[in-house]
Amino acid sequence: MSEYKAAIMLSMRVWELGEFGLIDRIAGIVAELPGNDVLVGIGDDAAAWLAGGSVQLGTADVLIEDVHFSLDRATWRDLGWKALAISISDIAAMGGVPRYAMVCLGLPRETEVSDVEELYRGMLDIGALLDVAIVGGNVSKAPSVVIDVSMIGSASGELLRRSAALPGDRVAVTGCLGQSAAGLRVLDSEIELNTEASEFFRAAHLRPCPRVREGTILAQQGVKAAIDLSDGLVSDLSQLCRSSGTSGIIFADRLPVHPLVASTFPDSYRSLALTGGEDYELLFTAASEVIDRVRGSMPTGIAVVGEIREGDCGQVTVLDDNGNVVELEEKGWEHFRSLS
Amino acid sequence: MSEYKAAIMLSMRVWELGEFGLIDRIAGIVAELPGNDVLVGIGDDAAAWLAGGSVQLGTADVLIEDVHFSLDRATWRDLGWKALAISISDIAAMGGVPRYAMVCLGLPRETEVSDVEELYRGMLDIGALLDVAIVGGNVSKAPSVVIDVSMIGSASGELLRRSAALPGDRVAVTGCLGQSAAGLRVLDSEIELNTEASEFFRAAHLRPCPRVREGTILAQQGVKAAIDLSDGLVSDLSQLCRSSGTSGIIFADRLPVHPLVASTFPDSYRSLALTGGEDYELLFTAASEVIDRVRGSMPTGIAVVGEIREGDCGQVTVLDDNGNVVELEEKGWEHFRSLS
Repeated sequence: MSEYKAAIMLSMRVWELGEFGLIDRIAGIVAELPGNDVLVGIGDDAAAWLAGGSVQLGTADVLIEDVHFSLDRATWRDLGWKALAISISDIAAMGGVPRYAMVCLGLPRETEVSDVEELYRGMLDIGALLDVAIVGGNVSKAPSVVIDVSMIGSASGELLRRSAALPGDRVAVTGCLGQSAAGLRVLDSEIELNTEASEFFRAAHLRPCPRVREGTILAQQGVKAAIDLSDGLVSDLSQLCRSSGTSGIIFADRLPVHPLVASTFPDSYRSLALTGGEDYELLFTAASEVIDRVRGSMPTGIAVVGEIREGDCGQVTVLDDNGNVVELEEKGWEHFRSLS
Repeated sequence: MSEYKAAIMLSMRVWELGEFGLIDRIAGIVAELPGNDVLVGIGDDAAAWLAGGSVQLGTADVLIEDVHFSLDRATWRDLGWKALAISISDIAAMGGVPRYAMVCLGLPRETEVSDVEELYRGMLDIGALLDVAIVGGNVSKAPSVVIDVSMIGSASGELLRRSAALPGDRVAVTGCLGQSAAGLRVLDSEIELNTEASEFFRAAHLRPCPRVREGTILAQQGVKAAIDLSDGLVSDLSQLCRSSGTSGIIFADRLPVHPLVASTFPDSYRSLALTGGEDYELLFTAASEVIDRVRGSMPTGIAVVGEIREGDCGQVTVLDDNGNVVELEEKGWEHFRSLS
């Protein structure tokens, strides 16, 4: 074998490994140096550690212009809301309460000061709603807009974990699915809608409402396993199953879809609900009796959409009304692999 | 006035306001929503809050390729070390102990997986030295490399604050100044040096050692005011003075400079020490008797380099051996304003 060919074989790029493969590699290295008082490390929605006898939660997310958002669609104020919402959702998916945010901004030199102020106003909009304060961060020069949010939360009860799903559990979700992806399609298209419908889709994509109260109810009612829906139902259930060493089934006829989504996208609403992503609802699994208890205490309602099965770690199968397997073109968002 | 002209006058770009002006604007907005149990918000080296009776510290920093670092100079492993070091230094400047890091990476699709692994190895190098674990984060696609680190620490004593300097205080620093900037010059030049000297300059710029132990000693010995040296002595003292409502004097003949820096840069070592930045030493102020106490308990030594004065909030004056004012070409790094 030529040296050149050997070098090619040794080299591996991140797009070949994909986001989830890369995270596995990183988690392997990082585990060599376990910290004191760490309850949850890399691989769940948020990290957790003990501080003075209380459980603290931490998560961090970066939003990069033209990768995660476009200023053609979103206002700066929308962007501020969504940047905080994403991290709040991670805390909610652990059953915790978000408390403090730190925000690092990378900005081109020509950025308008008033736009930056609007960005922070958007963060304050959702911060006021969910009692989250911005306590720190910094700003620096960058070739395009970069928004990094780290969020600190606290938890008083048991944590919801990706790794706690058990065969036989029902799979349930809060709220409706697919409306953020539907909203994105509306924003990018010429579809004619009345003002109310336009506003519904705009908010669905740009102003998601993380399920903080719902997350704490899940933990109180004895649910052990959850993940937030950021990449899409199939992808996120697959991640939860992979962490739990199980597989999962989704019944396509049980997906909760908002009537406006179904009527605006009659041919594709199921695919939006299965793989659309960014709904920031909670997906959770539990035994039937726990699910029944949750249903009675959840103000916004829940929908049972599937089941956890043994074996085939991480595999998710979607079944249609007749019990036939639905083939999916794409499973959901994965960085480096997804083509867009 | 034409509408066009009015619009021009209303518009202000971030480079016109500068990094510190922009942070002031942001701090003003953010203060409208104060959090519960927040001890220190925006404007210090790190934020602080109460959690279960203990004081937690948090700071976040973003490093952007070709703004904060160049892969021509640094290896990926160096970069990992430095990314963590910068945030650890912020915790040290509050008198705290760093505990947990969350790391968000933005990476081009063609990035080598082995380079990402080296980046984490560099983080583990300094993490092992200073007992910091990496507990979370994520990876995503980006047009250039973005590394965002958020660091959580704890503090058991009183916090060191930027706002606590008092007129009459002595200004002191740990370690030597200017060697990171000198190291950068060596890395960018053809200067001939022996292996030991080359390694000294390389480490000075690429592998700074944040002063965690020194920060806790300062807090124990009764020091109240400190900041870490990231932007340069003049700039960082100016920031501390601005927070404290005071001015400051620096005596140029008292700057601690390593003999290798002085001999390699005989004409510019003072300017490197005054404005070079990135030394990640601690600058602190206290009354003479406190300074004397600190001197006796600090293993690495300290140098008194100036004094805090009343009035002229944020003004820093540098005096030479004869008591004449030294005019500075540049005061230190400021994002958006600095031309490089």
